[in-house]
Amino acid sequence: MKLRNLVGDRFKERPSDCVIDSHAFSVRGGYIKYVANGIYSLYPPMKRITKKIEQIIREEMDAIDGQEVLFPVALPGSLWEESGRFESVGEELLRFKDRNDSQMVLGMTHEEAAVHLVREYGQTYTKYPFMIYQIQTKFRDEARPRAGLIRVREFTMKDAYSFHTSQEDLEQYYDVCYKAYNRIFQRAGVPEVIAVQSDSGMMGGSISHEYMLLADAGEDSIVICDECGYRANMEAAENCVDNAGTLPMAELEKVYTPNCKTIEEVTNYLGASVENSCKAVMYQKNMTDEYVIVFVRGDYEVNETKLTNYLGEKVHPAEVTEESGIVAGFTGPYDMKADCTVIYDVSLKGMENMVAGANEVDYHYKGLNLARDCGEVEYVDVSKIKTGGICPKCGKKTIQVKRGIEVGNIFQLGTKYSASMGMTYTDAEGNAQTPIMGCYGIGVGRLAASVCEARHDDNGPIWPISIAPWEVHLCCMRADQEECKQAADDLYAKLQNAGVEVIYDDREVRAGAMFADADLLGVPIRVVVGPKNLKNNQVELATRDKSVSKLVDLDQAVSEIQELKAALFAEINAKVEPHA
Amino acid sequence: MKLRNLVGDRFKERPSDCVIDSHAFSVRGGYIKYVANGIYSLYPPMKRITKKIEQIIREEMDAIDGQEVLFPVALPGSLWEESGRFESVGEELLRFKDRNDSQMVLGMTHEEAAVHLVREYGQTYTKYPFMIYQIQTKFRDEARPRAGLIRVREFTMKDAYSFHTSQEDLEQYYDVCYKAYNRIFQRAGVPEVIAVQSDSGMMGGSISHEYMLLADAGEDSIVICDECGYRANMEAAENCVDNAGTLPMAELEKVYTPNCKTIEEVTNYLGASVENSCKAVMYQKNMTDEYVIVFVRGDYEVNETKLTNYLGEKVHPAEVTEESGIVAGFTGPYDMKADCTVIYDVSLKGMENMVAGANEVDYHYKGLNLARDCGEVEYVDVSKIKTGGICPKCGKKTIQVKRGIEVGNIFQLGTKYSASMGMTYTDAEGNAQTPIMGCYGIGVGRLAASVCEARHDDNGPIWPISIAPWEVHLCCMRADQEECKQAADDLYAKLQNAGVEVIYDDREVRAGAMFADADLLGVPIRVVVGPKNLKNNQVELATRDKSVSKLVDLDQAVSEIQELKAALFAEINAKVEPHA
Repeated sequence: MKLRNLVGDRFKERPSDCVIDSHAFSVRGGYIKYVANGIYSLYPPMKRITKKIEQIIREEMDAIDGQEVLFPVALPGSLWEESGRFESVGEELLRFKDRNDSQMVLGMTHEEAAVHLVREYGQTYTKYPFMIYQIQTKFRDEARPRAGLIRVREFTMKDAYSFHTSQEDLEQYYDVCYKAYNRIFQRAGVPEVIAVQSDSGMMGGSISHEYMLLADAGEDSIVICDECGYRANMEAAENCVDNAGTLPMAELEKVYTPNCKTIEEVTNYLGASVENSCKAVMYQKNMTDEYVIVFVRGDYEVNETKLTNYLGEKVHPAEVTEESGIVAGFTGPYDMKADCTVIYDVSLKGMENMVAGANEVDYHYKGLNLARDCGEVEYVDVSKIKTGGICPKCGKKTIQVKRGIEVGNIFQLGTKYSASMGMTYTDAEGNAQTPIMGCYGIGVGRLAASVCEARHDDNGPIWPISIAPWEVHLCCMRADQEECKQAADDLYAKLQNAGVEVIYDDREVRAGAMFADADLLGVPIRVVVGPKNLKNNQVELATRDKSVSKLVDLDQAVSEIQELKAALFAEINAKVEPHA
Repeated sequence: MKLRNLVGDRFKERPSDCVIDSHAFSVRGGYIKYVANGIYSLYPPMKRITKKIEQIIREEMDAIDGQEVLFPVALPGSLWEESGRFESVGEELLRFKDRNDSQMVLGMTHEEAAVHLVREYGQTYTKYPFMIYQIQTKFRDEARPRAGLIRVREFTMKDAYSFHTSQEDLEQYYDVCYKAYNRIFQRAGVPEVIAVQSDSGMMGGSISHEYMLLADAGEDSIVICDECGYRANMEAAENCVDNAGTLPMAELEKVYTPNCKTIEEVTNYLGASVENSCKAVMYQKNMTDEYVIVFVRGDYEVNETKLTNYLGEKVHPAEVTEESGIVAGFTGPYDMKADCTVIYDVSLKGMENMVAGANEVDYHYKGLNLARDCGEVEYVDVSKIKTGGICPKCGKKTIQVKRGIEVGNIFQLGTKYSASMGMTYTDAEGNAQTPIMGCYGIGVGRLAASVCEARHDDNGPIWPISIAPWEVHLCCMRADQEECKQAADDLYAKLQNAGVEVIYDDREVRAGAMFADADLLGVPIRVVVGPKNLKNNQVELATRDKSVSKLVDLDQAVSEIQELKAALFAEINAKVEPHA
């Protein structure tokens, strides 16, 4: 199509509310338009990109025997009551009533709808295994949408659900899906996406993986060991701490530490190191407001997801009252009188000599030894692993913590939904059994934005050809000169006839504006028809990433462009794993 | 794919809640599943059908320079306040609040979102005309969903919006779109869909058309003149009544008509004909409860949409109270004392001698002549045309009233949305102008169901090959016999390699069950591999509509099937108008 007709504006100024580059380019390049907090309309270029991503996903889901279906966006609340999630999910589940006062929700994920669809179909073991998927709009009432399409409230998602008669069968299919996901990201031009072990959160189930695109702008922390290939997200990564060889035992001694409330203040005051201290982090349970005190080594942070999983319920940072009996700023494990749940993090295990609060204003203990002074305690992993920490897999101190964007996830759900919703099948022996499920998600718009985040320069996105809005960006530098216009028009027609997707800029604008627009549209192949090269019967052929830039004969242009197009596709496909 | 793996059940019994055939087959054939009132999930066969319909629509929209975009499902209420529709649309607009107590709506149509998307882009005349469209989930909180996918609350719709700088340009594009719509329905295999003039309703604007598929199960009345080609929906069809030559004038005479409250009762009692009577139909305005009395010839019905359009506000059937002064059952134009809006329908024009109420219990008038007895009155068209009525276009008494399903609509919106939402552009002279809009909708699921309604026999749908879930249904009659199974397996593999979409039934079930399932899936080409014909090295090749049924040599089967497939496509394409 002609760029002059493309709906949407492109502009130079970076919007002040855009924190990350992909968001800025999405707005500056005429890809998305803000409608409401976390809600966007898509302009034609982004719609073209997401359509291509959807097609890649569809092909890969079909290749692993997925059957495309469509679930509703608006679902009856009763369906979510069956699974228990109507109650258990927080405000991100948007609940409303229809004109007949019936309780409804906007689907944020469709496990319930999937079970509902196949509950009758899957009544005998001969129907298993099977997988259904949809590509559909979801709504998640995020408290803090951010970063353009990275974290939105309304989004298009591919969600797939598989049903199995044994854990082994689920695991086998999970592995097939794991590889299909790799292929999807490889085909979308981001083969560097890695799968990391993850916490299953509100989805339930046991084993799960997140697919992460490493990016400084990402909001997830990923734990990586380059030595053995271990990868997990922060919630799932076991924090292994070796405290052998720390300070030798000493006598427990109460010391005066006036106004030293933080662990840094007190260790500074006492000339101790933060590593040799025990700090108290205080929470309250959401349901009961009961206090939960986590003791953790002074240099570690508590991971709230690990804590929630351990407790089996959600918590929030505590507001300490006088009645609680907690002496805020001076809380320690020894001689603690407050009535609350106490948790000892693994980072404390083996510490023989620590500074800790004395549960009395302006006093701490030195020389605390948990085993000696507090008796046998259970150590629980509720803390975050740190760069340089011990790899839970290979045991070396090789852990790196990096930032990433989650672009997909796969879960072994088990029977959480099938059991709660009463889905059963008759096995070969005639016994009623509960099917085992897996689920598999990819956010389409987020993937598009993430690719932009991973593939851009200062001037705009550099779209992989497999998902680019067009394959070729054709510029006519002097539309006011007949010869130049004629040559460019001809080339445009020939490329279209050859089945090449072309965006054609034949506007009478200056070269700077033309190239700035081309950079913002990020089309991988650029063809420039200008008077100077035309004198030699040549046009300029270049890639958006500048790896190719050459002059080609005008009469060879179409075949040269097709060759380059094929080469760019080949480059992507070379990194795509074969089908399982 | 193999039928044995197809998710969804097929069964024989017609569900008791299915009033129309397409609904029954949608349920019996494993196409849709009820989730909530007017809300369905789609099983794989229906998803395959709707995907093909969407692709046809997309190609035709792209061919008329449409640019695909995506608007949100959840929209801020403020956007609908800009156009005034937040207030003006009834309960079918689902309103809710998000977690931050912001007012939201579920998009039932996207005029506001379209203007919002291009309000900045379209600021200069050089950008015009342009058209944007989306294929997206909509929600309309219908009071009475019915008939499966025909009238639902949640549905997938293609909605397009065009923007113009002159009425002439809009009309030109409207005509282009009109033809594109014809092509869409022709390509979908229902070339008999007709465009009828329609009332624009809540969309605003002037000229509009509905695309109607004639079907007894349809809920719309369509007015057709086969003589001159006039087509309109009931709301838009002018009721032309010629009362020349009715009963000659007579004296006005009050007569005793005890207990004769309906027009049939009184004309019977007086030995008059209903055609020579004037009946009163009573409404109240929704806002004020003010009474509106419509006088109409006894044998005509009032059309509430026409009445609403004339009054400029909505009405409901009246509840007549004593205080109103209205003498229910005996209301007539002469000597009426009640204080209310009185409307004379065109069907009364020229009537010289009528029976009418006397505004007194148990009394009517005979010989009423409106012009003589009531003075000059204005006649308004608020009545429904009838079969045998006068065609408003050619003037012959050739009108037929038929039933139809609305499968699409196109509107000349004018400036209703652009003006209310403050969208302007600068014209060539530097003056601010308001763009003129058109909008164009097609319900995808409803079209699928309508095709089924128009193309089925007693055993199931007969899908046109262009939208059929598969092109070929391959039956292996004896999967337990090695030779038969081998031949069918081979054919399945060859057809797949040849790019033919095959559903393959290799289950060990009896022939009756196999064919019943095939009928319910309605795939246009059926290939039956059975032991008897295999002895002669032959297989059976037939069409779902039984127009073709023959034996072909096994080694010619693939090419014969491809020929038949090509012929079926050619048959459809022969009825597709060329591009404008």
